[in-house]
Amino acid sequence: MGYKEFIIEGRNAVMEAFRAGKTIDKLYVLDGCQDGPVISIKREARKGDTLIKYVSKERLDQLSETGKHQGVIACVAAYEYASVEDILEKARQKGEPPFVFLLDNIEDPHNLGAIIRTANLAGAHGVIIPKNRAVGLTAAVARTSAGALNYTPVAKVTNLSKTIEELKKEGLWFACADMGGTRMYDLDLKGPIGLVIGNEGEGVGRLVKEKCDFIASIPMKGDIDSLNASVAAGVLAFEIVRQRG
Amino acid sequence: MGYKEFIIEGRNAVMEAFRAGKTIDKLYVLDGCQDGPVISIKREARKGDTLIKYVSKERLDQLSETGKHQGVIACVAAYEYASVEDILEKARQKGEPPFVFLLDNIEDPHNLGAIIRTANLAGAHGVIIPKNRAVGLTAAVARTSAGALNYTPVAKVTNLSKTIEELKKEGLWFACADMGGTRMYDLDLKGPIGLVIGNEGEGVGRLVKEKCDFIASIPMKGDIDSLNASVAAGVLAFEIVRQRG
Repeated sequence: MGYKEFIIEGRNAVMEAFRAGKTIDKLYVLDGCQDGPVISIKREARKGDTLIKYVSKERLDQLSETGKHQGVIACVAAYEYASVEDILEKARQKGEPPFVFLLDNIEDPHNLGAIIRTANLAGAHGVIIPKNRAVGLTAAVARTSAGALNYTPVAKVTNLSKTIEELKKEGLWFACADMGGTRMYDLDLKGPIGLVIGNEGEGVGRLVKEKCDFIASIPMKGDIDSLNASVAAGVLAFEIVRQRG
Repeated sequence: MGYKEFIIEGRNAVMEAFRAGKTIDKLYVLDGCQDGPVISIKREARKGDTLIKYVSKERLDQLSETGKHQGVIACVAAYEYASVEDILEKARQKGEPPFVFLLDNIEDPHNLGAIIRTANLAGAHGVIIPKNRAVGLTAAVARTSAGALNYTPVAKVTNLSKTIEELKKEGLWFACADMGGTRMYDLDLKGPIGLVIGNEGEGVGRLVKEKCDFIASIPMKGDIDSLNASVAAGVLAFEIVRQRG
């Protein structure tokens, strides 16, 4: 697993990472620990929008590479995140109707990397991921994105449903990738659009799905349930490209 | 790495695997080793169409999990292979023009698994992979195929160019996925077709490409070079589905 290199352990090292302005996705803290240094670290974490997880000593030991975590382990992002506004601005600069990917809890770094790569090549203006549960911009994601992370902005938001509501005010329509919806060929995907791709196992969550304007389905002919998430994202994205082209 | 569990080491264990009829993709043999048992193992390997690689002791030590390889390590396939004829037969049974994926040296098991999954859902009749270099049907491939390996036959051939020639006699046309060709929307992909997908880094090899009838290109709009191989396969496969539908 390539992300190991992006784990920072120990009170001093983690505090320094915060002070250096590194983007820390997750902070694992020993549950019940109330020491001064740990309280300071948690304060930094809250400023920086880091997700704090309270875990047992056994879990920390398991995550630790050095065995010297001192009750704190930080997961550092390999790349910096953009804002949703950055993404909209990119569309404005290009004079194109916004085309955004929203990923509802993609967990596999290879899928996230491949989707960012697809977003770039389909001419999307950015990718929005949720803060919780989902994988962030780790080294493995950067690697599988094949350089796309240098061009395609990725924003991380607290609540995907709320972001969808805000983007609707900007004129975007939302297409949720799922089975049992309208065949993608029969939808009008030419305007300002958000393409919502669900989690590998569970698909798009109910709350997010309810916010979407329509469900876009890929016509399936086989024996199994669903495409790999990054393949589904690619097929839908290039249907949008086809309609826009 | 999930394939470790499919490595068999040591003379007795490897010989037993051959006798049990297991499909062994690759056999690593200590270079220059002429012992009786090793000669017997190599004889079994030739019967069963296994690729034999002669390697140094250092390489064997590196591959070994137990450290007791005794000069032989076998890589066992997680699933059985079909024949090219099985794939054509499947198309006949369904009364459909053949639709086959040919993978020119896909190396990443996640890509191979995702492509087999896509082949299933796009209604393709099978997947053909080359014997040499490429990844075979390992545990990781089976897992990422999400069950598709139970339905979609995968055939392994010695020479992909030769297989293309043979399939042309069966009436198939071959579309090679690459840049700089005809936009996929402008091609007629409705008849009996072989979709050729290249290696992750190098694309489709020259000899294979020369055998293809046309080059099908996905319209690219971004800053980077190419899509992930399994995403490209998905986008092209569903363009075929769209045209056939």
